[in-house]
Amino acid sequence: MNRTAVDTEGSWFEPEDLARLRRKLPIPYVDVVPVRTDVDGSILQVGLLLRASGEGRIVRAIVSGRVLVHESLREAVIRHVEKDLGPMAMPRVPVSPVPFTVAEYFPTPGQSLFTDERQHAISLAYIVPVDGECAPQEDALDLAWFDVQELLGSEVLGEMAGGHDVIVRRALSHAGMI
Amino acid sequence: MNRTAVDTEGSWFEPEDLARLRRKLPIPYVDVVPVRTDVDGSILQVGLLLRASGEGRIVRAIVSGRVLVHESLREAVIRHVEKDLGPMAMPRVPVSPVPFTVAEYFPTPGQSLFTDERQHAISLAYIVPVDGECAPQEDALDLAWFDVQELLGSEVLGEMAGGHDVIVRRALSHAGMI
Amino acid sequence: MNRTAVDTEGSWFEPEDLARLRRKLPIPYVDVVPVRTDVDGSILQVGLLLRASGEGRIVRAIVSGRVLVHESLREAVIRHVEKDLGPMAMPRVPVSPVPFTVAEYFPTPGQSLFTDERQHAISLAYIVPVDGECAPQEDALDLAWFDVQELLGSEVLGEMAGGHDVIVRRALSHAGMI
Amino acid sequence: MNRTAVDTEGSWFEPEDLARLRRKLPIPYVDVVPVRTDVDGSILQVGLLLRASGEGRIVRAIVSGRVLVHESLREAVIRHVEKDLGPMAMPRVPVSPVPFTVAEYFPTPGQSLFTDERQHAISLAYIVPVDGECAPQEDALDLAWFDVQELLGSEVLGEMAGGHDVIVRRALSHAGMI
Repeated sequence: MNRTAVDTEGSWFEPEDLARLRRKLPIPYVDVVPVRTDVDGSILQVGLLLRASGEGRIVRAIVSGRVLVHESLREAVIRHVEKDLGPMAMPRVPVSPVPFTVAEYFPTPGQSLFTDERQHAISLAYIVPVDGECAPQEDALDLAWFDVQELLGSEVLGEMAGGHDVIVRRALSHAGMI
Repeated sequence: MNRTAVDTEGSWFEPEDLARLRRKLPIPYVDVVPVRTDVDGSILQVGLLLRASGEGRIVRAIVSGRVLVHESLREAVIRHVEKDLGPMAMPRVPVSPVPFTVAEYFPTPGQSLFTDERQHAISLAYIVPVDGECAPQEDALDLAWFDVQELLGSEVLGEMAGGHDVIVRRALSHAGMI
Repeated sequence: MNRTAVDTEGSWFEPEDLARLRRKLPIPYVDVVPVRTDVDGSILQVGLLLRASGEGRIVRAIVSGRVLVHESLREAVIRHVEKDLGPMAMPRVPVSPVPFTVAEYFPTPGQSLFTDERQHAISLAYIVPVDGECAPQEDALDLAWFDVQELLGSEVLGEMAGGHDVIVRRALSHAGMI
Repeated sequence: MNRTAVDTEGSWFEPEDLARLRRKLPIPYVDVVPVRTDVDGSILQVGLLLRASGEGRIVRAIVSGRVLVHESLREAVIRHVEKDLGPMAMPRVPVSPVPFTVAEYFPTPGQSLFTDERQHAISLAYIVPVDGECAPQEDALDLAWFDVQELLGSEVLGEMAGGHDVIVRRALSHAGMI
């Protein structure tokens, strides 16, 4: 849900072509909440990117991006984790393709809890424990890991755009943390 | 996953336009397994359509179709149930948008358990109890309700195409019936 | 998670017997979040009971109670809905036995988000749309239906004990409402 | 669902005491399907134990056992994996406490798909990827890892008792493998 989608995937289309498609069809997405887990599987930390939004604001974001034609959901999850957290990140892709939530992004604010001014996107959201070294890539300014309690007690979730904070809360809810 | 999709939704596009889009993007779908339930919520019967496949075979099918741009998943479920089971069908749309499974249809057989020669479709599958009068619509030849044990002991699941039988089995598995 | 459990089910045991069992084994429970839904399946209202807690406080509560030996989960859900909402309540028991969350109640506060001073209970939680006439039964003082936005903007969730508010929030999260 | 439960946990009670409890209350269990996964999260292999059943038959079994009083579900999963697969097994306990299925074991065959002549058990079932060295422990005769296709094409699932084969099939269904 950011410029990267255009920059790195738009090469598959002419930019006008992608813009035109986005007016005609819902676009399949994957949203990934990167987490560090304890040995008992409970979430210790959530990883959030810091990046410039389309409107020039600085926002926190989860890993997110389009599913390409002929690409499986598992491949899309791995590709976007690598794109955003770097080639040394080792995601443990979930065993099941069933998402913990589905986020429906609409261009018009208020139609759902999720907005994306560029398109109607239908995003399958996964909690993905990530091992290995993670580092911000390309257009991301930073990657920070927040303890769950720190995250909930701070202003960080308020710095997310488009409803990413809702996805993080739903992830923590599904994981039994809140 | 049938001609109806082209016939009833293709009007939003020129046919060549839809065909072209289908080569460029995965197409978001909903698959619906219509069921009759007992008072305790357990599945009594599964409703299957009988229709002509694109290749002229007669196949059994579940309710299935595209999500349109700016349409919510809930709206898509209701629209496709009405399209396939008639205006007197009363679907109890699930409380949660989380599907019980996700079916990834690819044009090339073997890339997954699901095939659709026309497109790469990503389908969110829901079990939907349906009350009221159901009747086959438009291009469907018949609608039949099968007791769960009858369904499993017969050749009916073998008469489904594209992997719809897998979706029915996953639905019964998720519901604790098999 | 209330005196009703003792009153109505304790008859299966001598009271001291149940108390002794509760020190030796985790007790299986079901928690039910009663809801009214829109035609598209989205949650409109949540039903909450008003009752006296064990310590004499007045608290809001969801439907909750033990699973009896030789009783199925579906039977337990129906029995507790009838016990708390009355014989005219018509619960639509979920098609799947998979709960939307599992609440682990411990006697010691802080071991989890859920506490029950009487016992270690493992509760499978379900969202149950309820049609028909609902009325508070037995020891409940009132039953009130709250619009989702009203519920979130009020003090009502703060009037719940033992972590029932966490279960309601998880239900709304799972249902895509928050 | 085996003698180990009595042998290793019965020490908490006198044997007659446990037998008596089992007639009075449903017993909370966890069932664990141990798997080896590919880098993309899909299941490659399922680990099954070979052990003597209560009736002296040799059966295949998944990891299974009671939840003890004051023990969390996460602790129970880890304890039973260690008990059955050895101290070098490294389970990746799921991030969410929501099971992929719930198995209700009854003493009377036919009341559900699951039977346990000793008790009414309510079991939360989890798919657990296991890294590290696994070895059969105590009363298990063997531990074998089966490729998914090998498992489905062989007689192995028919060698499971009490409905463990149903749990394995539901696990593969939930994971999108069948």
